[in-house]
Amino acid sequence: MKINGKHYHTIWLKEDNPSIIQIIDQRSLPHEFTIEDLTTVDEVAVAIKDMHVRGAPLIGVTAAYGMYLAVLLAPENIDLEEHIVQAAEQLKATRPTAVNLFWAINKQVDALTKVTSRTEKIKVALKTADWIKAHEVENCRLIGEEGVAIIEKLSAAKNGDVVNILTHCNAGWMACIDYGTATAPIYAAHEKGIKVHVWVDETRPRNQGARITAFELKEQGVPHTVIPDNVGGHLMQHDMVDMVIVGSDRTTYTGDVANKIGTYLKALAAKDNEIPFYAALPSSTFDWTIRDGVKEIPIENRGAEEVKYIQGLHEGKLMKVLLTPEESPATNYAFDVTPAHLVTGLITEKGICAASEEGVKGLFPEKIKPSNAK
Amino acid sequence: MKINGKHYHTIWLKEDNPSIIQIIDQRSLPHEFTIEDLTTVDEVAVAIKDMHVRGAPLIGVTAAYGMYLAVLLAPENIDLEEHIVQAAEQLKATRPTAVNLFWAINKQVDALTKVTSRTEKIKVALKTADWIKAHEVENCRLIGEEGVAIIEKLSAAKNGDVVNILTHCNAGWMACIDYGTATAPIYAAHEKGIKVHVWVDETRPRNQGARITAFELKEQGVPHTVIPDNVGGHLMQHDMVDMVIVGSDRTTYTGDVANKIGTYLKALAAKDNEIPFYAALPSSTFDWTIRDGVKEIPIENRGAEEVKYIQGLHEGKLMKVLLTPEESPATNYAFDVTPAHLVTGLITEKGICAASEEGVKGLFPEKIKPSNAK
Repeated sequence: MKINGKHYHTIWLKEDNPSIIQIIDQRSLPHEFTIEDLTTVDEVAVAIKDMHVRGAPLIGVTAAYGMYLAVLLAPENIDLEEHIVQAAEQLKATRPTAVNLFWAINKQVDALTKVTSRTEKIKVALKTADWIKAHEVENCRLIGEEGVAIIEKLSAAKNGDVVNILTHCNAGWMACIDYGTATAPIYAAHEKGIKVHVWVDETRPRNQGARITAFELKEQGVPHTVIPDNVGGHLMQHDMVDMVIVGSDRTTYTGDVANKIGTYLKALAAKDNEIPFYAALPSSTFDWTIRDGVKEIPIENRGAEEVKYIQGLHEGKLMKVLLTPEESPATNYAFDVTPAHLVTGLITEKGICAASEEGVKGLFPEKIKPSNAK
Repeated sequence: MKINGKHYHTIWLKEDNPSIIQIIDQRSLPHEFTIEDLTTVDEVAVAIKDMHVRGAPLIGVTAAYGMYLAVLLAPENIDLEEHIVQAAEQLKATRPTAVNLFWAINKQVDALTKVTSRTEKIKVALKTADWIKAHEVENCRLIGEEGVAIIEKLSAAKNGDVVNILTHCNAGWMACIDYGTATAPIYAAHEKGIKVHVWVDETRPRNQGARITAFELKEQGVPHTVIPDNVGGHLMQHDMVDMVIVGSDRTTYTGDVANKIGTYLKALAAKDNEIPFYAALPSSTFDWTIRDGVKEIPIENRGAEEVKYIQGLHEGKLMKVLLTPEESPATNYAFDVTPAHLVTGLITEKGICAASEEGVKGLFPEKIKPSNAK
């Protein structure tokens, strides 16, 4: 998608030096646009853990390129197999909830075990990372194609009046490579001339909505309004929301949707007000091994300082300010799980299905079997 | 309650000059503790509108003292009756949702019409304001006495283990004069040696939880943890919340509870997880004229800049930082309405009742009739 009119992906190899990964450092958005070079596996791990990049599909792709760096930069005379295992473990340890991370790293490890020479491994690692990236771009494009039908229907039912869509966190192209997951149908609708307006949950504590989704939408010219996370229920009670679309960090094959903390509350409000609630996700976000998402999906608890301090722009400079009494503790669960019964449907690259084992099986019959996705 | 070990109310007349109202300016809490003098009706109106003081009971009391200033400072040779009506209108126009404001001002107007001379009016206005203040202190104390029984029962059911209570916004003593509404049972329990821990919703956009409730609880030594507003649902799904207590800005005689935006979302989550959800309120917060809270209670929409900018402490100085893209619009509904069927009970100075017309009638039989509370 575009920033300042220029097309970008969220991650790429440096044009004149393909041993350097380049990313948009999302921590300083929307106030500063910074491209960061990642030159080692350690730097890739930090970029994922400290959320220079974030969003389930993007951290998967970043880890895939991290595995490529691991092979490319492996010291001579090292046990390369052991080195690959270690890099995989290091990258898997960065964040626990988004399953795309494990999926992408496992894809790399599987591919790398199939060839033996160092030269071949480098070639395979790059090819696999490139494939995962291209695959996720295409998945998001298809999610847009599938999902736009829902918006078209709502628009028709409103005789072409503005369709109001609420989204939580950033499941935009900045969480992916291009198009986004939750935003892909919105961008597709906007492109087609369907009138849409997006309620952007600011998404405390890290404000991915207020900072990144709002920035994305503004850059593509999509009408939107930022709201505190508390507001969605009131809007739904007063017929100001026609649908909710969120992304996902991990969705069980039974349809339970792990997503940014607070998603569950919006799903409850959507249910209470009979508003359709969709999660949009590529197949790489499914966990084919977990039945009960609320009980079994590991939920990351990040540092209290992300709640107590917030960053913003003051007189042209990025600054962190303290919000709470210094002595007050805070806690920071980063995700919650929305039970399948609150989810109207899942929008995937293969089509839209019910959030249920039967629904998911209908789109991905080959996947529903015990496996070791982690 | 105490600040730095010293007992305070949130509002009082200056000791050596009872024509000056003193308040704690709550905008700079917890980082700065500022006492502000209010010397005119205009200053009182600004203090309410711009939230130097906030919380339904406190803005009622502040307006009552504002009416006293109106009479006290009325120019000679003015139509005093007309002047009183104008002051009442000016103060009523400050904020639309909390009914205590209208209740307190109407009480003053009613009392003032009963006497004619200027001297008598001054005396009556002061007496009425003092009465309303004392009445709200006593109401909050009684809410504590009534509500603590619920916490005691939960504590007993947990064999004395910590009772985890979630609260939204600040319905503490800083929203009242002393004790608080939602916090009164918590302070009473803490006083009795019952182990409690409070989950403090930060309460965007103005962070009354993170700033004021956390500050209050810290000053009284009550264990607490600040959480983003998004987190409560997850905590409830995982048995980390034993009850929810919130305050109210207006509750219909049918049990619909208007309170700080986001309360409705927490009530939905409490219902979904079978966790008791109480609103604590003095009788001055009831609206005896409205049947359908969701449809009829006016909801204030405050400025977008309260969402886009946030204030905090940076290197010892209060600073505002911009959170969103400068160009992105924001909206700022300040309250929502939780339908009665999501509310386990109402904790009032007269006892605890079901959130229903029958329940409320049981405690306040004399009140349920058409009136003109506004």
